[in-house]
Amino acid sequence: MKYLGTTPKLDGFYMPAEFAAHEAIWMIWPERPDNWRYGGKPAQAAFVNVAEAIGKYTKVYMAVSAEQYQNAYQLLSDNIHVVEMSNDDAWMRDVGPTFVINDKGERRAVDWEFNAWGGLHSGLYFPWDKDNQIAKKVAGYHNSPLYHADFVLEGGSIHSDGEGTIYTTEECLLNENRNPHLSKEEIEKNLCEYLGAEKVIWLGDGVYNDETDGHVDNIICVARPGEIILTWTDDENDPQYKISRVAEKALLSEKDAKGRTLKIHKIYQPGPIYITKDESLGVDAVDGTLPREEGDRLAGSYVNFLITNKAIIYPLLDEKYDAQARQKLQEIFPDYEVLGVPAREILLGGGNIHCITQQVPAV
Amino acid sequence: MKYLGTTPKLDGFYMPAEFAAHEAIWMIWPERPDNWRYGGKPAQAAFVNVAEAIGKYTKVYMAVSAEQYQNAYQLLSDNIHVVEMSNDDAWMRDVGPTFVINDKGERRAVDWEFNAWGGLHSGLYFPWDKDNQIAKKVAGYHNSPLYHADFVLEGGSIHSDGEGTIYTTEECLLNENRNPHLSKEEIEKNLCEYLGAEKVIWLGDGVYNDETDGHVDNIICVARPGEIILTWTDDENDPQYKISRVAEKALLSEKDAKGRTLKIHKIYQPGPIYITKDESLGVDAVDGTLPREEGDRLAGSYVNFLITNKAIIYPLLDEKYDAQARQKLQEIFPDYEVLGVPAREILLGGGNIHCITQQVPAV
Repeated sequence: MKYLGTTPKLDGFYMPAEFAAHEAIWMIWPERPDNWRYGGKPAQAAFVNVAEAIGKYTKVYMAVSAEQYQNAYQLLSDNIHVVEMSNDDAWMRDVGPTFVINDKGERRAVDWEFNAWGGLHSGLYFPWDKDNQIAKKVAGYHNSPLYHADFVLEGGSIHSDGEGTIYTTEECLLNENRNPHLSKEEIEKNLCEYLGAEKVIWLGDGVYNDETDGHVDNIICVARPGEIILTWTDDENDPQYKISRVAEKALLSEKDAKGRTLKIHKIYQPGPIYITKDESLGVDAVDGTLPREEGDRLAGSYVNFLITNKAIIYPLLDEKYDAQARQKLQEIFPDYEVLGVPAREILLGGGNIHCITQQVPAV
Repeated sequence: MKYLGTTPKLDGFYMPAEFAAHEAIWMIWPERPDNWRYGGKPAQAAFVNVAEAIGKYTKVYMAVSAEQYQNAYQLLSDNIHVVEMSNDDAWMRDVGPTFVINDKGERRAVDWEFNAWGGLHSGLYFPWDKDNQIAKKVAGYHNSPLYHADFVLEGGSIHSDGEGTIYTTEECLLNENRNPHLSKEEIEKNLCEYLGAEKVIWLGDGVYNDETDGHVDNIICVARPGEIILTWTDDENDPQYKISRVAEKALLSEKDAKGRTLKIHKIYQPGPIYITKDESLGVDAVDGTLPREEGDRLAGSYVNFLITNKAIIYPLLDEKYDAQARQKLQEIFPDYEVLGVPAREILLGGGNIHCITQQVPAV
């Protein structure tokens, strides 16, 4: 076994914030026909657009199954590095390693346990053994020494400000389908040990009807230390109304690891967005995989964007709100380029741009 | 498509000799049960020993299928880099890219067509589509720009002295199961274009009963420019006797690209070695795969070794001849370390240490 026996915190490593410099972004090529309609072809086109947008700012690695290797190779530009890697689906944020760095310019990685967002209890597909090997393979690609956290966690369920604070949600991390044997305090300790952090700030629920059990990366993100962006709605009849207000209250009641009171920016959610009849067609029915049915509400949110090397790659989801989201992002990130990429096809598969990307911090 | 439209020669690139410095060696993990007995376990143990021996001198990448990834990962030391890569068998010399360099310190690679040593005519297994993608994947790993040679060739069928001369055999390169539409002159031109060479020196046949159709790397190797090592026997009743003498005559009748008369070193072959009854057991019978039957003569040869960064990794094949081969190698390479690795298990699969390795030249 090649795992380090210690923890990042013990060794002086920590997870940098997403707005720190990146060496690369990893993605996974979508293909499974029981999640992506029409054999994954519309989703593949959407992922190509995301990869090419990111590629303007950061080197992109696309992990692709042996079966789809040649197809991805031909559809992607020379700018995107295609790497064979077997997988169970396309959520690199959740199955990839969490890279940690130290102040000496070294980089390591954390390999969490992955159980497809709930395991045999309420996981979204079965099996997930290939997904659970991806962190090791990606870390190996970068020759990163690897920590193993014997702890179920997806990358989308945490945000780091890079200065000692981790953000997460109770809906996900306290869910009995992840680590039921651990108390809230033990989970906090694990997060701090493996992310090199000092403090965990807990929100309650994530975005309404989010099949990940409310990943934090769909409801908020960290714009800079002490500044949070929260998805928002003014419609009192929308179930998201109360969730966002509870989240706001939780954030305002806490100080971060550096003692700062948090500043909150709000971005109005799109929609609500529902799966159309046409969109529910073309998805294979498979026992054990979450179906995609007409009328299901999708967990659309503009905060599910990627920050990479002074660019914001954000999802275009709703003509009524896209421009407003862009304007808000540009205000929050005045010296960043803000690029929108059509993302409804990604949302149909259960996540968005942040969920399908994972950064390798520069050292 | 990401292939360069020119040729290495046009662009000033050439294939360095094996005795030039290496950045890395690539291998492939053996597993197919219709070629390697007992589910490949004895062969895997042999490949581990080869990899660990090479790893003392040069970084080793082991390409492994998804199914065998975890097994290889656990059996190999931390020193060996395990990379997921699907394959049809374990002959990296023959399916890997041929790297070429220029005088500016740049490196590119050539992707040859591969047809499993003879295609539908007399190939050794079917299909071979995964093998045919390996050159592209290995080159991609090193970010090497890639030439495509629309020409069937395995790396084991050529040797380069790095100074303009290529060695090959008529038995293989003029075989109708490779490039029957090309004349000898056209094949020479292809070799010179894609290897950046000036002259091709042809031997007749390769080692007796070599299933690759007489790969040059099993009968001779280049010790240094103008010096060749030839496998040899004094037994007039051995079919190898005449083959080695014809090869010697061919070599002595030519001058290399620099006008040198060749000096020939001889190393006595092991055996002859035959498959035992016990060794023929445990290999699955599969239509289209060459069977391994009791009494078949194996194409054992000590010249099928790897030169890497001032070390010689040579095959241990026969107690009667191993020490003599070692002594000879040490005489020819006085300032190299000479390491023997048990290799009969590799030979049972149809090749040897040179066949299962491919170098990435240093730049």
